[in-house]
Amino acid sequence: MQSFELTVLGCSSATPTSTRNPTSQLLNIADRFMLVDCGEATQIQLRRFKIKFQRINHIFISHLHGDHYLGLVGLLASMHLLGRNNDLHLYAPPELQEILDVQHKHSQTFLRYKVVFHPLGFDQSELLFEDDKLTVETIILNHRIPCCGFLFKEKPRPRNILTQALEKYRIPVHVLGKIKRGDDYINEQGVTIANAEITEAPPAPRSFAYCSDTCYDESVIEKVKGVDLLYHEATFMQEMEERAKETFHSTTIDAATVAKKAAVKKLIIGHYSARYKDLDKLLAETQSVFENTVLALEGEVYSP
Amino acid sequence: MQSFELTVLGCSSATPTSTRNPTSQLLNIADRFMLVDCGEATQIQLRRFKIKFQRINHIFISHLHGDHYLGLVGLLASMHLLGRNNDLHLYAPPELQEILDVQHKHSQTFLRYKVVFHPLGFDQSELLFEDDKLTVETIILNHRIPCCGFLFKEKPRPRNILTQALEKYRIPVHVLGKIKRGDDYINEQGVTIANAEITEAPPAPRSFAYCSDTCYDESVIEKVKGVDLLYHEATFMQEMEERAKETFHSTTIDAATVAKKAAVKKLIIGHYSARYKDLDKLLAETQSVFENTVLALEGEVYSP
Repeated sequence: MQSFELTVLGCSSATPTSTRNPTSQLLNIADRFMLVDCGEATQIQLRRFKIKFQRINHIFISHLHGDHYLGLVGLLASMHLLGRNNDLHLYAPPELQEILDVQHKHSQTFLRYKVVFHPLGFDQSELLFEDDKLTVETIILNHRIPCCGFLFKEKPRPRNILTQALEKYRIPVHVLGKIKRGDDYINEQGVTIANAEITEAPPAPRSFAYCSDTCYDESVIEKVKGVDLLYHEATFMQEMEERAKETFHSTTIDAATVAKKAAVKKLIIGHYSARYKDLDKLLAETQSVFENTVLALEGEVYSP
Repeated sequence: MQSFELTVLGCSSATPTSTRNPTSQLLNIADRFMLVDCGEATQIQLRRFKIKFQRINHIFISHLHGDHYLGLVGLLASMHLLGRNNDLHLYAPPELQEILDVQHKHSQTFLRYKVVFHPLGFDQSELLFEDDKLTVETIILNHRIPCCGFLFKEKPRPRNILTQALEKYRIPVHVLGKIKRGDDYINEQGVTIANAEITEAPPAPRSFAYCSDTCYDESVIEKVKGVDLLYHEATFMQEMEERAKETFHSTTIDAATVAKKAAVKKLIIGHYSARYKDLDKLLAETQSVFENTVLALEGEVYSP
């Protein structure tokens, strides 16, 4: 089975607590390791959870509030000091380039590897990355400063050829690729065996949508429709609705409403305000609207 | 007794490990709380050790390698979010101002309190701060980029008046200040009572010198002569002497030699390379030259 694992590295909002770090998540789809946001101490969390961070080749930064990017300069430096050679792809608001340049200039840092900078646009959703296994698109969010989420989707996989069909029809190796792509098999005698008889459908492509930071915004719903895993920030309980609106954040009910209207399979909430010691209250309130909700907790691994 | 406590918040060198954070120390002299360097995750360490960080009014940054300042933007933001009003004094290389400005601009952060920026010079030692209790001066260090340490010294305190003398000579309140400063007491009959008879010497002023990052440099010795506590980096064991020289860092023996030649009372080593799991070896090697050495360990509190 192709890997599809989300590891939460930090689940706090802007002010970290003694037990919760600023936002960062590591996503592994088909052995592509991708970091989503990189709050302060992300590299320390990666170490703590024994994740080899040189395997990360793609970093996505949603916006330029410090709790979403302040761990980046330190992580890039450690990758350098530990001998990285591979290119690193960085998808981020264009202004991050200046933030990195100023710091590298004054620390006289010259990274030994190449950082390929992909500036994000915020007018409409964009395709950021595509290979044979997955795509990554932006989700336009609604926050105090330009901000976007990210939608990760597996590509449809080839059909699985049934073991018993291989034996029964003595199918030669050189036609397997075509059959996996849906072709029928025509044997040496010219007899056609229908693809449906010799293959089974592959697992459905899976998807993960990351939405932080944002106020409640109906436009997000269409974009995340039916995803397997939705991470949506829920900074506040519903009683703090006014504060949420002022600060362009979401409440538990906002997150649950997006999940429900988008008919996602599972909701993960996070980005908790430091005021909440007991996260179970946030969970219960979210579940009152969307039952299949779980808490983002540091070190936990989530799969569809 | 006037407070004099050093708390180590981070003791790692450039690449943090799963158990060691980048450099930061909190110094409390006479209830002045001063932060010395502010590596990534300093605010998380302050939380972890339950230190009220709004009490910090002075932050000293030795140089602009990331492991010594990357926690600053996050700490300033949290102070803001938690309602700080008091001025914060920041003593740092002048280029740090640009690093802060660029990040505050792009995150649209407007701190609610004033950061008073004091740019450091690196040509000669300077007096950075002075009040009725202490002085802070720079120590010019020798590193790859401009870098200085800091020398914190208590001011001499007034003499203590002996309780029995107060009663015996019925000394009136209005002359106590002069007697504490060393004057003799002349009573109503015009008789002189010598100061030495009615007072005792106060505790000797204490001092702490912070030296990170630096290669072995004899000029440091004169500046830290006789201090009560010397923190000196010891990134490497002596067998890595060449690597230490290349990177302008110190070995255990370098740190011990400075401590010995300066006749300090106690040496604290730190800034350990991530390659060392067992710090006792560094300690033993340092003690082979300067016996009264201890390891900087996170959460530990050191006093003269």
